[in-house]
Formats: sequence, structure tokens, C-alpha cells
Amino acid sequence: MSEIDPLKKKLREIGFLDSTSMTLRWDQQTYMPDGAAEFRSKQKSFIDQLIHRRLTGREFEGVLGQYVDLESGEVLDDGLSRRSRRALEETFRDYDKARSLPTEFVGKLSEAGSRSVQAWHKAKEEDDFEIFLPHLEEMVGLSKKKAEFLGYEEEPLDALIDYFEPGMTTAKLKEIFRPVRERLTDFTDRLAAADDPVDDGLLTGDFPADVQYDFTCEILESMGFDFDRGRQDETAHPFTMGMHPTDTRVTNRFDPERVVSAIGSAVHEGGHGLYEQGLDPEEFGNPLGQAVSFGIHESQSRLWENLVGSSKPFWRHWLPRLKAHFPGQLDGVELDEWYELYNRVEPSLIRVESDEVHYNLHILLRFELEDALINGGADPARVPELWDEKMEEYIGVTPESDAEGALQDIHWSWGQFGYFPSYALGNFYSVQIFEQVKAEIPDVMDLIGQGDLLPIKEWLNENIHAYGREFKAGELIRELTGEEPSAEPFLDYLEDKYSEIYGL
Amino acid sequence: MSEIDPLKKKLREIGFLDSTSMTLRWDQQTYMPDGAAEFRSKQKSFIDQLIHRRLTGREFEGVLGQYVDLESGEVLDDGLSRRSRRALEETFRDYDKARSLPTEFVGKLSEAGSRSVQAWHKAKEEDDFEIFLPHLEEMVGLSKKKAEFLGYEEEPLDALIDYFEPGMTTAKLKEIFRPVRERLTDFTDRLAAADDPVDDGLLTGDFPADVQYDFTCEILESMGFDFDRGRQDETAHPFTMGMHPTDTRVTNRFDPERVVSAIGSAVHEGGHGLYEQGLDPEEFGNPLGQAVSFGIHESQSRLWENLVGSSKPFWRHWLPRLKAHFPGQLDGVELDEWYELYNRVEPSLIRVESDEVHYNLHILLRFELEDALINGGADPARVPELWDEKMEEYIGVTPESDAEGALQDIHWSWGQFGYFPSYALGNFYSVQIFEQVKAEIPDVMDLIGQGDLLPIKEWLNENIHAYGREFKAGELIRELTGEEPSAEPFLDYLEDKYSEIYGL
Repeated sequence: MSEIDPLKKKLREIGFLDSTSMTLRWDQQTYMPDGAAEFRSKQKSFIDQLIHRRLTGREFEGVLGQYVDLESGEVLDDGLSRRSRRALEETFRDYDKARSLPTEFVGKLSEAGSRSVQAWHKAKEEDDFEIFLPHLEEMVGLSKKKAEFLGYEEEPLDALIDYFEPGMTTAKLKEIFRPVRERLTDFTDRLAAADDPVDDGLLTGDFPADVQYDFTCEILESMGFDFDRGRQDETAHPFTMGMHPTDTRVTNRFDPERVVSAIGSAVHEGGHGLYEQGLDPEEFGNPLGQAVSFGIHESQSRLWENLVGSSKPFWRHWLPRLKAHFPGQLDGVELDEWYELYNRVEPSLIRVESDEVHYNLHILLRFELEDALINGGADPARVPELWDEKMEEYIGVTPESDAEGALQDIHWSWGQFGYFPSYALGNFYSVQIFEQVKAEIPDVMDLIGQGDLLPIKEWLNENIHAYGREFKAGELIRELTGEEPSAEPFLDYLEDKYSEIYGL
Repeated sequence: MSEIDPLKKKLREIGFLDSTSMTLRWDQQTYMPDGAAEFRSKQKSFIDQLIHRRLTGREFEGVLGQYVDLESGEVLDDGLSRRSRRALEETFRDYDKARSLPTEFVGKLSEAGSRSVQAWHKAKEEDDFEIFLPHLEEMVGLSKKKAEFLGYEEEPLDALIDYFEPGMTTAKLKEIFRPVRERLTDFTDRLAAADDPVDDGLLTGDFPADVQYDFTCEILESMGFDFDRGRQDETAHPFTMGMHPTDTRVTNRFDPERVVSAIGSAVHEGGHGLYEQGLDPEEFGNPLGQAVSFGIHESQSRLWENLVGSSKPFWRHWLPRLKAHFPGQLDGVELDEWYELYNRVEPSLIRVESDEVHYNLHILLRFELEDALINGGADPARVPELWDEKMEEYIGVTPESDAEGALQDIHWSWGQFGYFPSYALGNFYSVQIFEQVKAEIPDVMDLIGQGDLLPIKEWLNENIHAYGREFKAGELIRELTGEEPSAEPFLDYLEDKYSEIYGL
């Protein structure tokens, strides 16, 4: 029995509904018939309103109020354990956000979001921004309204960012990103001037989707992703949905001419998936069974995708297996060449296919557009134009179509403004965390080279996943590494790795 | 605006939850990871309790009480339209059943059912009845308790049968089934003595599952099943789930050595699917947007499966297409021979693979076991033994394993005692309905022969589906055909059809 069991019981019930809403969202992206979209948006909106009503209703307030002052958020009992205290503080945080939104508004946002996602799918498929524009306008409008309901000290986007990375603001992000932009654009300029070491023609070939599916499942399995408690499916945009530690689903897409994207996505989503599978099922529904923040979540996916999955030891083990899966496609490729190919730096139009070096520039672009739309009042109709300008400025390429430009990401269609910065923060965190992994498991790179990824998974399980939201993002990094959160280690890592590959 | 819109609004909300619960159930049977079973059973139980609480809560009672006397069930306003009055009567029926069950009991039943289904899957897979027995015992116990809560005049099973076929009882079914058993066992004896006209070796061969999937989708499409508002998936046991007229999902199983089962199942489930897709979406959640009864639902599936899908005209159109899908498998088969093959009468161990003649004997067996278990207090441990005895008596074959005996059907694992009889009633209704189709569309068999199935679908849409629960089962048959519901036309049809095939 925990000290705060009555509250945990109520939160578990809300968790059942949250998890149901996620199942509906997963289904919408995977198997739901197109014609059901309108109904599903109403159904999901109804469930989301139920959740909101429960979290802000008198019954829940009665229980929460036994532990927390509902005005100030102060925990009433000094004698509670640290974990219980943190569970209460984080529960109050969620409750406080929820109560500032009217339930009808939550329903409207949910319904509009579902419709908007459907329109985004269509717009992307038909490469027609006009199909999406009215929905983008609606989602921007609703998001601004949401920010007003939630309240903020400096700028409206702060209220939205705080959902994804508690305590973060537009101003702080600008400060963090300034040196990142400078070092990255400088470094990409130097890389662009260097000789391209390898022929990227080798990356395209004949890679049947079903074999890619099997191969990526093998990699996921070796990471310790438990297929008895999860699955992989195909969707337009890869994502991870953690309905419960025993029901965590990753998705992927399989380009039959190019195998590397699906591999990168599998390892990336697998990192998210391991976090969800690693949460404590006993704490399901309450903060001690939930991920710290979107930034920390992303640190898990990026740690696996980049620091493990694009390392030379990883490919020492996996390249022969890749060749065996696709006979005749990569026969002549040696490990060194493949490593350079896999880590080839090249300006890309698509964020999720971007190399590590350019990746955060894609995030900067999006963050600046969010800043313009939500804080600056920019007209959503100008998004494609602004997008293309910034792509040229930061990445040096211009999209030929909106499908590979402003329409490439799903996030804004769900109204998730303020989400993208957590991708960049995740990159920064990931390097700090992996440095610690290497310090505590000195032979980790050798183990990776032997295909033994489980010690990494177990380290993350023990040191991060098991804690739930017991620590805030910054605290967690300090606890783990003894250092302040910082982008420096990430930038150092990038410059070291790619200077070597490009002989700078 | 309808006269009873405030009530319909409340029912639509309950419909959102019902539909969500169905999506969870569909997911559990199709894509859910095995390890999530325990969590899912709790989650679904929670949702089912929410539904029950809403349907019996003060808010709903307040609205329903404006139209109906909550004691007697009498409709208060004499001036309402017939449709509104029927919607009220049927809503009261559902409410009255619901309020007789405690919410905790509903939750317990749901959770136990989910666990039991999971155990049944395992028991069937491992052919081990002992795995299932404790769950069967629990479901029998809970079902008896449910019958006590619901109340009944004669026998406990009556209370459960009434869910599936309102007004039907154990005694009435016994009376209906007595002559059916006599005529059927007599007729199967005569058929057994006749010469088998065809070599059934032709039915087995090499039929890749993915081609079967495509072929059955083609058939479903030709029936008018709308894949924009539905889909087909593979499951252990074929079923149809109608979450909404815009989201109706059928499932099937594909034996790579035998194509006929999947075809029969596709046409069968397609019949159910067309009913669900044909319901009025404007009436979603209230009785006017729901199917009449399980018996009438089954009349739709059996009409398509047997009266359309096993007719010679149907195969005139589809046999060449079947041959084209499976080159080399059926090259020498002519229409007459295939028709006789497809309609071959042979005692089968498996209900869903049974020919039309033996089918209702499978139902009789199950009904008699339900009668023994629920009314007679038989020990669930004796089910395999009783099953095998009755199989020998009615069908003349004995299962070699419980997997193809007492473990073959999913229904009892969900606690659905009293469901099976509606399959037999559906068979009887289907012939009465199809006689009417033939009377109103005189060239219907020619149209079937040309592959034009849409006129049948449209007739059913207009004359049955669009009404929802405006008529009770018996009323509907009388309205449609001018005759009382009866098994006679069905038995006549069987004897005519199979006497011709077997030259009796």
C-alpha cells in the first residue's frame, strides 16, 4: 500500500480512458477505414471530454484536495516520501492545466484536431497545401486560445511549450538555440566544402517492404523491445504509442528503394518504445508511471538512433545481417564504407530523413515558424513561403513541393505547437546520457559490436524509465551526470564524429 | 429535429462508448499484443462499467423519465409518431435490463469475459480443455447470477436468450426445434444413404492466404460492402464488428489448403457487415439505428452465405474468377460439378464449416448443452463428454480432440449463453426473407448469375436495415412476407435443393 493509494486509484481510472483514447488514435493512423474519420473525430472528442471532466470534476478534486492545497498546489503532509510528494506535485500540475481549460474547449480541440489530421493526410498525398490551410488556421486559432486559457508570463507559445518540456519558454529556447545555430551552420559550411567520401548510389536499390519489416523487427528485438508487449505496423509517419507498459506500439514506413530510413526509424521509435515498456506498470496512470517530458522521451529515441544505431560497432554486427536479408543489393560494401554512407551528411528536405548534423536546423526552422505563428501573429497562409525561405537559409535546399516542405510533419495538424523544440533538447540530452552510459559500462561499444544491446536497455530501464516523473528533466540530467543540461556535449560529439568521417 | 432529440443525444453519447468498447474488442482479436491481455481486460471492464453507469444513472433517468414511466415502461405521450414510440419502448427495454444488474457485476463479467476469451484461445491452440475449464465454470456461474438479476418466468436461460432474441424462451425454442430435429435427422439419414455425386478431393489444394484475402475482398465488394467504411482482417474466428455505419469490420480466416471456408465466411460476415453499414447513421446510438435482434442479424448473413453464395447462378459468375485467382487448382472443374461440390453434404465436426443441412443440428447440440449448463445445473467439466455424445447422436461423427469439439466456438468464453439459438432462427428467417426478395425482384437469380448483387443489397437496405429496431423480429417477418415466422419454408428449401443434388 502506498501513502497516496486513493489518489492513484482515481488516476488509474483516468489512465484507462487516456489509454483508450490512444488506442483510437493508433487505430486511426493504422487500420481505420477512411470513411470513419468524421465519426471517429466525434467519438474521440467525447472520450477526451470525459477524461477532462474526470480530471477536473468534484470527485477527483475531493481526493486530490486531501493531499494538496488546490489553490497554491502545496503538498499538505510534510511527512510523505519524496516519491509520493513528487507524484502529488506532478498530479497537481496536470490538474491545474486541465482546470484552466473549459471541457467544451477540450472537446472542440480534439474534434478539430482529428479532422485536421485527416485533411493533412489528404493534403500531403495530393501535395495541395490549400486542403490543409483552413485546418491549420483553425488549429493555430485554437492553440492561441488554449495559451490564453492556460496563461503565460512572457509569450503565448510558452504555455504550449510547457506541456512538452515543463519550465521551458520561447526566450530560453532562443538563448539555447543561438550558439547551436552558429556552430551548426558554421560546421555544415565546412562539411559542404569537404570532399564527399562515398558514393550514395549504394543506398538505393531493391529492398522489398516485407523484408524491411522483418529486418527492423529483428533489430527491435535485439534492443530488447518486447513483441509480446508491443508490435510494429506501417503508417504514413512513424510514431510510438504507449497505451500501457504491456501494450506499446511502434510504427514505421518502408520505402522499397531505400532501406536506411526504415532502419533509422525503427531504432528511433524503438527507443521511445523501450521507455514506454520500461515504465512501472504498478504506477500506471500516475506521474510515477509516466515519462518525464517529451525532451527526455526524445533523448531515448535519439540515443538509440544516433549514438548506438549509427555507430560503427553497431554496423559491425548488423551489416552482414543486412546483406543477408537483401541478397545482391550490398554485396560489395565494406564496413568502413557503409559507416560513412550511413552517416553521410547531405542537406535533406525531410526532417525525419535528415542526418544528425542538419537535424537541429530543421527543428530551428519549425520553432521559428511556431514563434511567428503563435507569438508573432503570422498568417498561416504564408507558412509554405516562410518554410521555403528558411530551408534555403538553414539547409541550403528549397522544396519543390509542399508535400516535401511545409506539409511533411503531422504535428501542427494535431495542434501540437511547441512540440518540435523537444526534439532538439532530446538530442542534447541524449549525448549527456550516453556519455554516462559509457562511463558506467566501459565496454559498451564492444558489446554493441557483438550485437549485445541489452545492457544499454537495462541501464536506461534502471536509471531513467523506472523513475517515471520523479525527477524533472533538468534534475534527471543532473542526477545522472552531475552536469547541467547543455548543448555543448552534443555539438562536441557532432564535430568530433563528422570531422573524422570527412577528414576535416 | 425529432420529437425525442434530448434522449437521442444521451443515447448517442452512450453509443460513442459502446463503439469504443467494440474497437477495443476488435483490436483484442486482431492486433493487440498478447502481453496486453490482462491490462485490456481491466480497461474494457472499466469502459463497460462507465457505459452501464451512464445508462442507469440519474442524468439518463431524468431524460428517459420525461417520455416513459420508469416503473411500468409505458410511453407517456400518446401523440408521438410510431417510430419515436418504438424508440422509447426499446430504449426502456435496454434500460430496464441494465438497471437490474449492479455496475460492479457488469465490470466483473466484462473482466472475467476478457480473461476467459484469452484462456479459450490458448486452450484451443494447445487442445487442452483443462486450460479453459476454470474460466468456463466462472462464466457459467456469472451467467446464472446474471439470469437471477434479470429475472425470468420459467427458466434462467430465458433471461439470457432474451438479449439475443427478445421474447424467445427455452420452452418456445424446444417446441420450434422438435420438428426441425425430426425432419433434419430423417433427411440426413436419407442423404447418407444416397451416392455421393462428387469427389471432394478437388476442394483441397494450394490456395495462398493472400490470394484468398484478395478474392474474398472482391466478393465483398461485389455484394456492396463498402471498403471506404469497412475492412477485412484475419482472426482465429471470423466475426463482424459494427462500430458505426461508417466503420464496420469483418474478419476471416484463410486455410491455405482449402479455399471454400474463407469464401463462405466472407459472404456470411459480409451479410452481417451490410446490415451494420446499412443502419441509419443519423440514428446512431438509439434503437432506430440498431439491428432488430441477433436472429435477424443472422438472417442477413445466412441469406447471403446460403441463398445467394451457394446458389448455382452465383458460381456461374464467380467460378471463372476463382479459377483465375488460383491457376492450376481447379482447371478441370465445371459449374455443375463445382455447385455439387460446394453444396456437398457431409457430417462435419466444425459448425462454421458445416453444410446447410447439418448446420442446425450443430445448433441444437449447443442449445441443449446451454439448457443443461444454465437450467439443468450440469457440471461444466462434463461439457467435452456431453459434446462428443451429442455429436455422435446428431451428426454421426466424434471429435478426436476438444479443439475440434467443445473448444471450437468462442461464444461461451465471452459468457454468451443463449446466443446459438439465434443462428437457427436466422436460418429460418433467411428463407422467408429471400422468398420475398424473389417475389419482388423476379429476375434476381439471373442478376446473381451476371454478378450483379447490388439489387439484393439495396432491397435489404430499404426493407430491413433502414428501420433499425422499429419492428420486433416476428413483426418484421410478418410485415415483409405477410406470414408468421416459421421453420417450414427453410426445411422445404433444404429438402428441395438437396434432393435434387443427391437425386433423391
